[in-house]
Amino acid sequence: MKNNNLLNLLLILLMTANGYGQQWGPGVTSPEIHEDNSVTFRLIAPNADSVFVTGDFLPTVKVSTPMGEVDAPGKALLQKEENGVWSYRTAPLTAELYSYSFVVNGLNTIDPSNPFVIRDVGNLYNIFVIGQKEAHLYAINDVPHGTVSHRWYESPGLNMDRRLTVYTPPGYENSGEQYPVLYLLHGAGGDEEAWITLGRTAQIMDNLLAEGKIKPMIVVMPNGNVIQDAAPGEGNTGFYKPQFMVPKTMDGTYETHFMDVVHFVENNYRVLKNKANRAIAGLSMGGFHALHISRIYPNTFNYVGLFSAAILNGNDPTGTVYANIDETLKTQMDNGYKLYWIGIGKTDFLYNANQDYRERLDKIGMEYTYQETEGGHIWRNWRIYLAEFVPQLFQ
Amino acid sequence: MKNNNLLNLLLILLMTANGYGQQWGPGVTSPEIHEDNSVTFRLIAPNADSVFVTGDFLPTVKVSTPMGEVDAPGKALLQKEENGVWSYRTAPLTAELYSYSFVVNGLNTIDPSNPFVIRDVGNLYNIFVIGQKEAHLYAINDVPHGTVSHRWYESPGLNMDRRLTVYTPPGYENSGEQYPVLYLLHGAGGDEEAWITLGRTAQIMDNLLAEGKIKPMIVVMPNGNVIQDAAPGEGNTGFYKPQFMVPKTMDGTYETHFMDVVHFVENNYRVLKNKANRAIAGLSMGGFHALHISRIYPNTFNYVGLFSAAILNGNDPTGTVYANIDETLKTQMDNGYKLYWIGIGKTDFLYNANQDYRERLDKIGMEYTYQETEGGHIWRNWRIYLAEFVPQLFQ
Repeated sequence: MKNNNLLNLLLILLMTANGYGQQWGPGVTSPEIHEDNSVTFRLIAPNADSVFVTGDFLPTVKVSTPMGEVDAPGKALLQKEENGVWSYRTAPLTAELYSYSFVVNGLNTIDPSNPFVIRDVGNLYNIFVIGQKEAHLYAINDVPHGTVSHRWYESPGLNMDRRLTVYTPPGYENSGEQYPVLYLLHGAGGDEEAWITLGRTAQIMDNLLAEGKIKPMIVVMPNGNVIQDAAPGEGNTGFYKPQFMVPKTMDGTYETHFMDVVHFVENNYRVLKNKANRAIAGLSMGGFHALHISRIYPNTFNYVGLFSAAILNGNDPTGTVYANIDETLKTQMDNGYKLYWIGIGKTDFLYNANQDYRERLDKIGMEYTYQETEGGHIWRNWRIYLAEFVPQLFQ
Repeated sequence: MKNNNLLNLLLILLMTANGYGQQWGPGVTSPEIHEDNSVTFRLIAPNADSVFVTGDFLPTVKVSTPMGEVDAPGKALLQKEENGVWSYRTAPLTAELYSYSFVVNGLNTIDPSNPFVIRDVGNLYNIFVIGQKEAHLYAINDVPHGTVSHRWYESPGLNMDRRLTVYTPPGYENSGEQYPVLYLLHGAGGDEEAWITLGRTAQIMDNLLAEGKIKPMIVVMPNGNVIQDAAPGEGNTGFYKPQFMVPKTMDGTYETHFMDVVHFVENNYRVLKNKANRAIAGLSMGGFHALHISRIYPNTFNYVGLFSAAILNGNDPTGTVYANIDETLKTQMDNGYKLYWIGIGKTDFLYNANQDYRERLDKIGMEYTYQETEGGHIWRNWRIYLAEFVPQLFQ
């Protein structure tokens, strides 16, 4: 093979490497992030009758439900050019990690020009970051990076090997130090992938650490669905479309056996094994789990975070674990803790449930820190809550 | 909130958890894997004029290129039912991990009913596994699982922190043992994600180990693109659409500084630090890298694997690293090694280049094991080669 054939060779590699004989489409840039942080979406679809973009950067719209109105993201119509390319340019956007998808002739689909997607429950969404260059917390910056591991542990209580995600801070492997641990729990429909992908946990921790705003700590992201050994596609059930409502998630089984996770971590990582160095937090269903786990193991966690927690007041959930809530909360209070943090968005459908829970805590005199933000029950808020919560830990 | 409102609450969570107000589409099952291992693909697209599925389970078609004919996957037309659902059922398929995408009105897109995708260079493809229940090597079976870590190391030679993927075998963390290491290199357009996603390396290793067919070993999957610190979307350049041709990949820079990776691994993992316990293998461009790295460090690796290697005979590649090939190969031969393994598909466009290389080795009397398979330059072959190569290591 001669020198001047190298380019040909590479062109053929280009055509065949993925086994598909071609790259997708003739190529448009989408999303294009402009100087002013406005964004243009493009799709080549000469035969389409309508192309919409829907995403969390558009103003929300109200949707009626049996429980009242809830927020849903709006959608914007792309305009068709003569060359068959549809496009839409947003207003300038603030720094954030955004997600979106297209709706082509009524059919939801991803943007074929953007290979970056995150799975949320059973669907994929494209993502992009505004503020990448301004050292935004969600970007990968030129700072020391922790290690993200996908590891399996034995759960005697659930009688299976289960997968979890572990973030260890930069330098962990070469240090003799012992570290505190944050247990970080996902919501309904999520799994051990949710916080590390949608939540950008590794980036948030790396960046806050580089800014000197947090203590080095290990973050453990377990799977809160007791019927799963691992995320769909990562466990021995194989590939199946994830469902939002997984059985046995709020019946007490997970809370009862949560110490399996703690024991594994404390026997397998260089960690500080005491209450002062344990934190637990979760979003939505994970907030519900964090509330009850910290309460039924009432002298275990010095730091508790409830992010848009799916608090079911009264005796709604099944399982004896949920009995005697006030009594066990009082025990937790009497044992003492450093931080009990509650965050909720103003338009979250769980807003009232969280206010009810605050009243309950007020009634028994249990102290907490309360943070109210804009927005609803969305990942944007959970990333913000995480970034606000972790600097308060282990200080 | 009353007990009977729990279902309503969960329904609303369902509607709002992903922030999109709805799950995608009214729902068809796609792909559906039937008892006989035939597969039905479905897409709801009442307004579409044509829907094709293209994937590596369909017979290949010949495509003309400047270098002659090459194989490309075929495509099959889905049939439209009256309800607007398009469908296509394959013939029974053999056990394999398959990938596919749809072409709707000429537009490439993924299957919106299947959230499992893998990125190959700049595009996403849906995947499914046939043979999941038969303990196929690519499935996640109920066997002990190794840990997959995404870790960063300092490369003094390239003057940056760089990301790599490391598979440690089950029990590594709690063992005092030292392990051998396989360095596993990706092809052009790939990165440190390629082998662990497209290559199913963790599953192959877990399963072969459970079957007693391989020695426990560490598999290190570095990034062979010296201008990147990490895979697109995982490095400090942020999100950008990956290109197939990355500069400086075949100019000698990577080979020259490869020992940065080895030094990091040998200083940070419990490994056996000698030639008898080092293997290096790669696919396509990674095969090229493995060939040259094992040659310019001629007493370092006892096992070398060239999988559909992009062998550029003569003095094609730039860089002094590629000078004196025969001479350094002779040195490597004289130093001795246990296995020099070459695998290539019969219809691979690199077939002739690999035959030329065999002649070159024959001429200097350098021994190797040669494996010829069906098929071309595709991931299916590289998974097969990996599963055939690793049982021969460190025995």
